[in-house]
Amino acid sequence: MMTSMQHFHFSIQKRLDGKLGRTGVITTPHGTIETPSFVVVGTKATVKGITPEMLKDMGAQVVLANTYHLYFSPGEDIVERAGGFAEMMNWDGPTMTDSGGFQVFSLGEAFGSGVSKIASGEDKPASERGLRAKKFARIDEDGVSFKSQRDGSWHRFTPERSMEIQWKLGADMIFAFDECTSPLAPYEYQKEAMERTHRWAERSLMRHEELDREKKQALFGVVQGGRFQDLREESARVLSAMPFDGFGIGGSFNKEDIGTAVAWVNAILPEEKPRHLLGIGEPIDIFGAVENGVDLFDCVSPTRVARHGRLYTHDGPIQIRNARFREDFRPIEEGCGCYTCQNYTRAYLSHLHRENEMLGKVLGSIHNLFFLIKLFENIRNSIEDGTFSHFRDEFIARYYV
Amino acid sequence: MMTSMQHFHFSIQKRLDGKLGRTGVITTPHGTIETPSFVVVGTKATVKGITPEMLKDMGAQVVLANTYHLYFSPGEDIVERAGGFAEMMNWDGPTMTDSGGFQVFSLGEAFGSGVSKIASGEDKPASERGLRAKKFARIDEDGVSFKSQRDGSWHRFTPERSMEIQWKLGADMIFAFDECTSPLAPYEYQKEAMERTHRWAERSLMRHEELDREKKQALFGVVQGGRFQDLREESARVLSAMPFDGFGIGGSFNKEDIGTAVAWVNAILPEEKPRHLLGIGEPIDIFGAVENGVDLFDCVSPTRVARHGRLYTHDGPIQIRNARFREDFRPIEEGCGCYTCQNYTRAYLSHLHRENEMLGKVLGSIHNLFFLIKLFENIRNSIEDGTFSHFRDEFIARYYV
Repeated sequence: MMTSMQHFHFSIQKRLDGKLGRTGVITTPHGTIETPSFVVVGTKATVKGITPEMLKDMGAQVVLANTYHLYFSPGEDIVERAGGFAEMMNWDGPTMTDSGGFQVFSLGEAFGSGVSKIASGEDKPASERGLRAKKFARIDEDGVSFKSQRDGSWHRFTPERSMEIQWKLGADMIFAFDECTSPLAPYEYQKEAMERTHRWAERSLMRHEELDREKKQALFGVVQGGRFQDLREESARVLSAMPFDGFGIGGSFNKEDIGTAVAWVNAILPEEKPRHLLGIGEPIDIFGAVENGVDLFDCVSPTRVARHGRLYTHDGPIQIRNARFREDFRPIEEGCGCYTCQNYTRAYLSHLHRENEMLGKVLGSIHNLFFLIKLFENIRNSIEDGTFSHFRDEFIARYYV
Repeated sequence: MMTSMQHFHFSIQKRLDGKLGRTGVITTPHGTIETPSFVVVGTKATVKGITPEMLKDMGAQVVLANTYHLYFSPGEDIVERAGGFAEMMNWDGPTMTDSGGFQVFSLGEAFGSGVSKIASGEDKPASERGLRAKKFARIDEDGVSFKSQRDGSWHRFTPERSMEIQWKLGADMIFAFDECTSPLAPYEYQKEAMERTHRWAERSLMRHEELDREKKQALFGVVQGGRFQDLREESARVLSAMPFDGFGIGGSFNKEDIGTAVAWVNAILPEEKPRHLLGIGEPIDIFGAVENGVDLFDCVSPTRVARHGRLYTHDGPIQIRNARFREDFRPIEEGCGCYTCQNYTRAYLSHLHRENEMLGKVLGSIHNLFFLIKLFENIRNSIEDGTFSHFRDEFIARYYV
């Protein structure tokens, strides 16, 4: 038991030779996080189908919930009365919430055509490159108004409002309200949005300082700037000068650019503060980002794809519904230490997934989360003992066969 | 660890004064069951969303899987190669499978109009009282042909085939193949079906004896006869003369008749063998049946209704999605020892159910199963210490407010 509250702190343990990457330990009021680390996403204050005991058992260190979703249900006031989202979901470890910006802006101008966090081309008409009519989200200098996809009602987030909601949700680490742009938006729009994000960062800091007199919550600023090196560098410089406890690297990337864009930013951000790459979690992206100084990652992929039967192995993902697994009585992966692999066969998982049984989704999610959490443990170990490049090359050569 | 296989055995511990009810212990190759007991239903070799560890934790003693469902997926041959359904699902305790009859006949003539295990009236036209065209199941003396609702293909079950499938599924306790009639079927049809069921019982015994030389599986005969006292008594008499290890009481009942119909049968069945009331699990039905000598109950209700937000309390069920629970930070029921009540609030469960989150279904199922398992524990204790009637009256008065 802690007798007095632990304040937020980050200490670097070991640096990667000639690179920005490092291992470290983040201390929070609810425990420590060894980094680089995978942040498990519990969107609505639940990691779909997974109990907190299962999360502990798989080695999860920190859970992130989404401000946008909890704002709508059950609402931040109810979460506050429950003692915060961690208490509500019975998770006693470190927690984060995002700013709500990503979800709000994905309703609006930026993400009109099914564009997600990563785009691979620019072959879209101008009307879809951040210029089209703002159907569900309207941005102004003060904040953003957006239309609920649940009931058509209009809502409004501002930097101050995001801080107030996140204060009530009560996570250990929270994010400044930022405008998340489409990877397809042109330079002029990216610059305008970035500059607005910087002004919103100042306002987020001011409002948070008023709310959090005892410094219970660490506040991370979010670097934007899209795919443009000068904008990313400018954003990193401007935000570095503000008294944030850490930094998110937000927005969208071209897939092949992630490591590079991260390096632009992390070369400028103060090295003694942790960096979180928002919403990215594919193995190949993780290695590039870790190498270039990212400490935290969150991503819904491991659980989302698991619910659809896509299970990670070191030889790449398998689709467990595939007929070849119907009579395969081996675990998902030989030697895997997860609860699922220790107790169940591919044949049983294939049966559960073919029958759309909940337990198939649960067991698949446990395996995929364990796979990523273990990958980060191995990454940390490889940085500690100087074998990172070797570990990365072997992992990638085998995974992307 | 058991050094040699435990054979099936039932011992009566304590009798209810002046009634047929009793407590007892069933010994199986995979452990013992204190009776009266609730049998948890794991239809497709999974209790929806619930791990075997959760089942142990809630005090579950025995799991029943459905032959019909496992026959279709993954198929009995795959289950056999997995080491049986218990091994496949990682449940190391006692197990049962049903005969497949209920599901097959519910496709056919008997259950044309949404009629389930319990009917409350006879206000259906003759065409729906067991006389209408057999659309998806055709019965003959040898067995029944039925049409798959998955792909329209035709399949055939006979008593021999049911024994062969159940042998491969590998449960500790299995059931003879029986014809389950509609509660609306007329006397003549009930008699004809019952007599066929008795001939199928003989054939089930013969085929099972050939398959199970080492007596790994206990075989239960199934008493039929619908709502008719003379048929129920005849069925009990005829089956009592056959060397079954226990008895199922099958078919459908008028709800108000369950205790009475059970008493007709159990007054005749050999008292030294256990009796299982198939597919019944509402509290009021349980008390009537226990009093009249039933030892085992299985029912999908606790998990099915839990998935839809209906949660048991001693003051009757509540619908957790109801607005009044949104800010109710108490457990489902004060004093409940289940995992859900020990760790989560009604407010959180209401949020999960409103958002259709898997964890809401899991936590609700845990609570409802625990509620029933605990009810049986209390029933056993009340029989042991002579307070059954008092316990029953208090429970029912409070539950059915």
